[in-house]
Amino acid sequence: MQRIDILVTGGTVLTMDEADTTITDGALAIQGTDIVAVGRKEDLSRAFTADTVIDMPLSIIMPGLVNAHTHAAMTCFRGIADDMELMDWLNNYIFPAEANNVDPELVYWGSLLACAEMIRSGTTTFSDMYLFEEETAKAAKQAGMRCVIGEVLFDFPSPNAKTSQEGLAYTEKMLQKWADDPLVNVMVEPHSLYTCSPDLWKAATALADAYQAPLATHLLENGAESRQILEKLGQRPTMFLKEIGALNERFFAFHCVTMDDEDMRIFADHGCKVVHNPESNMKLASGVAPVPAMLKQGIPVGLGTDGCASNNNLDMFQEMDTAAKLHKSALLDPVVMSAKTVVHMATREGARVLGLDRQIGVLKTGMKADVCVINMNKPHLTPLYDEYSHLAYAVSGSDVDTVLINGRIVMRNRSLTTLDEDAIMARVREIALKIRAGLRPNS
Amino acid sequence: MQRIDILVTGGTVLTMDEADTTITDGALAIQGTDIVAVGRKEDLSRAFTADTVIDMPLSIIMPGLVNAHTHAAMTCFRGIADDMELMDWLNNYIFPAEANNVDPELVYWGSLLACAEMIRSGTTTFSDMYLFEEETAKAAKQAGMRCVIGEVLFDFPSPNAKTSQEGLAYTEKMLQKWADDPLVNVMVEPHSLYTCSPDLWKAATALADAYQAPLATHLLENGAESRQILEKLGQRPTMFLKEIGALNERFFAFHCVTMDDEDMRIFADHGCKVVHNPESNMKLASGVAPVPAMLKQGIPVGLGTDGCASNNNLDMFQEMDTAAKLHKSALLDPVVMSAKTVVHMATREGARVLGLDRQIGVLKTGMKADVCVINMNKPHLTPLYDEYSHLAYAVSGSDVDTVLINGRIVMRNRSLTTLDEDAIMARVREIALKIRAGLRPNS
Repeated sequence: MQRIDILVTGGTVLTMDEADTTITDGALAIQGTDIVAVGRKEDLSRAFTADTVIDMPLSIIMPGLVNAHTHAAMTCFRGIADDMELMDWLNNYIFPAEANNVDPELVYWGSLLACAEMIRSGTTTFSDMYLFEEETAKAAKQAGMRCVIGEVLFDFPSPNAKTSQEGLAYTEKMLQKWADDPLVNVMVEPHSLYTCSPDLWKAATALADAYQAPLATHLLENGAESRQILEKLGQRPTMFLKEIGALNERFFAFHCVTMDDEDMRIFADHGCKVVHNPESNMKLASGVAPVPAMLKQGIPVGLGTDGCASNNNLDMFQEMDTAAKLHKSALLDPVVMSAKTVVHMATREGARVLGLDRQIGVLKTGMKADVCVINMNKPHLTPLYDEYSHLAYAVSGSDVDTVLINGRIVMRNRSLTTLDEDAIMARVREIALKIRAGLRPNS
Repeated sequence: MQRIDILVTGGTVLTMDEADTTITDGALAIQGTDIVAVGRKEDLSRAFTADTVIDMPLSIIMPGLVNAHTHAAMTCFRGIADDMELMDWLNNYIFPAEANNVDPELVYWGSLLACAEMIRSGTTTFSDMYLFEEETAKAAKQAGMRCVIGEVLFDFPSPNAKTSQEGLAYTEKMLQKWADDPLVNVMVEPHSLYTCSPDLWKAATALADAYQAPLATHLLENGAESRQILEKLGQRPTMFLKEIGALNERFFAFHCVTMDDEDMRIFADHGCKVVHNPESNMKLASGVAPVPAMLKQGIPVGLGTDGCASNNNLDMFQEMDTAAKLHKSALLDPVVMSAKTVVHMATREGARVLGLDRQIGVLKTGMKADVCVINMNKPHLTPLYDEYSHLAYAVSGSDVDTVLINGRIVMRNRSLTTLDEDAIMARVREIALKIRAGLRPNS
């Protein structure tokens, strides 16, 4: 009998592999950071003796969720302003609140809070764009979370960089510092086509190429933005990105609401990927991304919550539910987006988008042990005919019982093992008092 | 100092009265079934001495939620089939599963399960249409929940009524039996215009008039249905309902997705009301109800989850979130539906739709004590700038800590006091085994 660190049993294992293998009375054997076996409980219990056994009857054991686009530290601005015209919201609330308050302290504590919330709702990997991303990396390390981080780049000064050159240098330093880290990955993140000059785009592309790093951006988020870029560049943004050589299998874009057939063809031809953020797109009245068409073209699509100012939580289960329903509603067709498709988007497809699909997103031998155990023994999850249906339409983040990342238990029986939530919440409440005091008097 | 039964303190009281009075460090005094005072904790603590004190720091104390349209017992069919063409779904799954399995036992246990789920997510009143509704009344009484129930009426035989006359007689018996009950209210519920003949509609209207009972139905749920009725009746259904005298302030309709301006004018003129079911409408690809236009016309609109085959849970917080976002997305306008509006829809407007607004929906002296206490001391609810924003966009049903209905504590610290959940879940799982065995082999 082989000695291992952890055996997870008691539920149905959804592997999310290409065949969508499901194992009733399944189990997962973990040694160090890796999955060493996936199979029937009966078999694995005979083959292994484990130091720690996580046994949850009536559970689903699945890959940890991948939140493929967020701004973690924006938890500090959660619900600060809603239900407004986009420009009113940005210019009178979000931008001034950020300009006055965003510093390393806010980013660190806001990111810690986001990590607590994400682990509690089953997310094990997040992709993040914000300022002072070193602080987000520090928070993620402390939480034990996997991440892909990028310092936001734009033409104008930011609280962290007087020039775009400084932003690029900060990014390059992160690329070097975290090159061999098991959890923290770094990407290059120009904010968008309307905030970054062609020169900045070319420099960002060169940097991503030099380090073979992901290059990611906000793209075609709504009609007004798309028209503005078309006017500025004199061509469709995807065509511009293609011409400067930005598009390859390391490139992914958030939103892509106003993508047309030609954009999709270019994305598919170059192996580019998309992150769908349905709740943010709905709340900001941006429109509905043509995700069913993207999937038909073979474009990998992941799922993201976007930041807490436009969602206003980081619950990927709610995001799956919304993704599954929104396209049915928009296209008046109930078969365009299945429960299984959105669960894939939140797991293995998200991993593929981030370039991590050789490490995570599927439960199989040799993959990293990023695992989420969901307690299905609850009234709102009873009865159970189909696991994928429940994951998309009935489970909420609070049903997640236990979470492992890179073989480490970061939540067990809904208790976080790596973070002191009370201290984090207290600190963010103090930061919020300061933010609120700085809001315009008529707000 | 006056002796009372229960004092609820420790949080911010949202009264939901016309002025939306909010009391920081608020409290609620309850004697018997009634609210006897609402005010500042400091004042009420001096005025009253209570047998039971419910003190939850960092909470929101608000009216219990009103689920204005559901089919409670359909919890038994939760997730049995999804993502299908409507007629495939109904004819090959839902209708046969119901025809083969719906009996008093299924309705009783399915309704109990629904009550457990609803209390756990802050719902204190539900409006229900299904078969064997006496069993739903029995379950609601056992759970201690407030309800408005109606036996579904249609032209063809049901498992509970060989003819529509039998259905009407069953309804009349319920109207008499529950006339003076503090929790159970009865309505008359013809299923729809496409399943009930003009004669049945006239008889149902006469029955509702005789008992001054609410009359409620599915109306204009999607385009195909609307075209079918127009063809059958030779006129718009609202015009037909108006002509037979069905429309008055006791009439309310579910869905109303394809309502046009004329329908809305007729509804507004007659004091009729609407129940909006956004998640069900999205999942079934029915379209988007013109709720902002209805509200502009002054039509009261409540919120409902619909049944668990088309949602697939009964969480009214998720329903609020979806309602707030869906109309922004559909109309590409972020200001058409505010957080506050959807919270009103789930509380006082729901009470108005059901004709219960003199008893519930607002926290004020003299109203029945239907109360929901939400624990806001959680990462995903931190920080807190605006209570309505969090209720609509960040809270989920599992954040509800304590629930009172008619002055009785039915959940405290997330433990149900009236129901044995484990026994209920075990029984519904047995029923589900039978249902699954009867599905077509190719399912």
